[in-house]
Amino acid sequence: MTGSVLDAEGLRDRVQKRLDSFLESQAPLLDDVSDDLGPLIDTLRGLLTGGKRLRPAFCYWGWRGAAADDGDAIVDAATALELLQACALIHDDVMDDSDTRRGQPSVHHRFAGLHRSSQWFGSPESFGTGAAILLGDLALSWSDELFFRSGLPADALLRAKPVYDLMRTELMAGQYLDLLEQARGGGSVERALRVTRFKAAKYTIERPLHLGAALAGAPETLLRTYSAYGLPLGEAFQLRDDVLGVFGDPTETGKPAGDDLREGKRTVLIAVALQQATPAQAAVVLRHLGDPHLSQRGIDDLRAVLVDTGALGHVEALISTLTDQALASLSPVADPAREVLAQLAVAATARRV
Amino acid sequence: MTGSVLDAEGLRDRVQKRLDSFLESQAPLLDDVSDDLGPLIDTLRGLLTGGKRLRPAFCYWGWRGAAADDGDAIVDAATALELLQACALIHDDVMDDSDTRRGQPSVHHRFAGLHRSSQWFGSPESFGTGAAILLGDLALSWSDELFFRSGLPADALLRAKPVYDLMRTELMAGQYLDLLEQARGGGSVERALRVTRFKAAKYTIERPLHLGAALAGAPETLLRTYSAYGLPLGEAFQLRDDVLGVFGDPTETGKPAGDDLREGKRTVLIAVALQQATPAQAAVVLRHLGDPHLSQRGIDDLRAVLVDTGALGHVEALISTLTDQALASLSPVADPAREVLAQLAVAATARRV
Repeated sequence: MTGSVLDAEGLRDRVQKRLDSFLESQAPLLDDVSDDLGPLIDTLRGLLTGGKRLRPAFCYWGWRGAAADDGDAIVDAATALELLQACALIHDDVMDDSDTRRGQPSVHHRFAGLHRSSQWFGSPESFGTGAAILLGDLALSWSDELFFRSGLPADALLRAKPVYDLMRTELMAGQYLDLLEQARGGGSVERALRVTRFKAAKYTIERPLHLGAALAGAPETLLRTYSAYGLPLGEAFQLRDDVLGVFGDPTETGKPAGDDLREGKRTVLIAVALQQATPAQAAVVLRHLGDPHLSQRGIDDLRAVLVDTGALGHVEALISTLTDQALASLSPVADPAREVLAQLAVAATARRV
Repeated sequence: MTGSVLDAEGLRDRVQKRLDSFLESQAPLLDDVSDDLGPLIDTLRGLLTGGKRLRPAFCYWGWRGAAADDGDAIVDAATALELLQACALIHDDVMDDSDTRRGQPSVHHRFAGLHRSSQWFGSPESFGTGAAILLGDLALSWSDELFFRSGLPADALLRAKPVYDLMRTELMAGQYLDLLEQARGGGSVERALRVTRFKAAKYTIERPLHLGAALAGAPETLLRTYSAYGLPLGEAFQLRDDVLGVFGDPTETGKPAGDDLREGKRTVLIAVALQQATPAQAAVVLRHLGDPHLSQRGIDDLRAVLVDTGALGHVEALISTLTDQALASLSPVADPAREVLAQLAVAATARRV
């Protein structure tokens, strides 16, 4: 996504500053425990540098769309979502055994490297996994800590906490369904869409908007408007991500070309292709998908099947329809949030291949 | 620990009832997402059945010791600590690759078994690890959810939240230090005691007492009293656990005999033994400790070294001194909490071998 609309109100800089100052305030706590904890906070700081800050943006604009004023406290509360996302990324990379994240070694690889270079006892991989599990737990804990330290009034925080809770539960549930989908070998378009709905639509867009609205004390009708915007947009956004995962430019996605194919991700794109495939095309998919040693030739063959079955065209059409649906729901939202949310919808789903 | 003092005020039953009703209230959330999420809640329910409920007990008696009255809301808030502990156990078992927990298969083994019996694709072990990471994350999230849903007044909850936050951070930090200690091969009594301090003394006893006191709005002096009681007692309690891990009855500990030795746990007991050992005795320790295939003969040889070096005697004396120190600090605490905390100190550290 091109960055400009995400930078409205200087939001990305403000989120980064808040993350920096929060980590700085936590460092002495860890130092009090032991000098040996430096790598935990350094690694988290590294992971939290960069990123699109999508979830804080939706939370912030959910607040503004309820006609609430700009302020540092709402940015702080919104920034908490980046720490939740850090947990999701760290734990997800352990589960997928991903090598890289945002162009850097993934957290468990980084700690495995520390173990190796320190020539410690035991398995570097086990140490890396253990450290990454704990750092994810720390990020998850720190997320609601930052939320409550935002300086918003107690009644606003307590009113919004159930939304925050629901969002976390849906995130974990969606991740488990994703795991299950890979284990079952996928296949159904409906089940793949359900994973998308919970992992992306609700967690990335709808619930952050709801959180901002609940903090602002918005009426139930605005929450419904945000669902009508956020759910189709979230699905469209995830579908765009799936397309980029197969056809995207590695310098933009931050992942090696074909990584999603090597991982065997059971996306909607794949499910549609399998539904439409001839036996010969299906055989290509089943032979290559999830092969960790997939070659460029294999990637090209898979891409051809995704195009020739019409799956790519179908998914592009679905992205357009869902995005239009999202845009059509925005009229009750207060300006300037309405305009920003419209631009976000377009930017998040634009064709980039 | 014999149960009676932990049952004072019917606490164990009340905690169990609250856990049951909380999980029952969460089940529909997961059912709304998908029918496939049943194993998550069933597994968590299984793990949360039984257990000593030590942390809820210390939180509850921390509240009562501030002269606050019994009530269901404080039991609810205290019960939140069992969900935090569930996260710690689930993730700990993944990190240690433990087979069992409380006499049942550990969570990651249980999900690996589900994968195997369902004949799904991919590695059962990876699926088990992924599911256990997510279920631990869910338990961690649900812990502060239950805390805020306890029905205690908003000002009490917000006043106590920083204690809760600190406790979680110290728990994760302590777990990381433990991991680091195993990787470095341990050796220093001082470093082993530091792990004990954070993993056990602060997390199990001092912070739960502080949490209860903060919820009750107790003065700072009572928090200091609880530290003076909780820190030495927590160390004594962990030392007792270390001794039981080597010399204890498997029917009481719920772990196979010698499991801590097979895992290579770098406890204070081991550190003292290595410090006092002759070269021949040290060789026995280094040969057997951490051997996953350690035989009964090897266990007996290791036990003999722990006795003959005087390490066991030293640790028993340390347990006595620390327990006496804890007992001597209780005078400012309101009755009946003072009496119960005194009994808890004795019960938690009593010799059982």
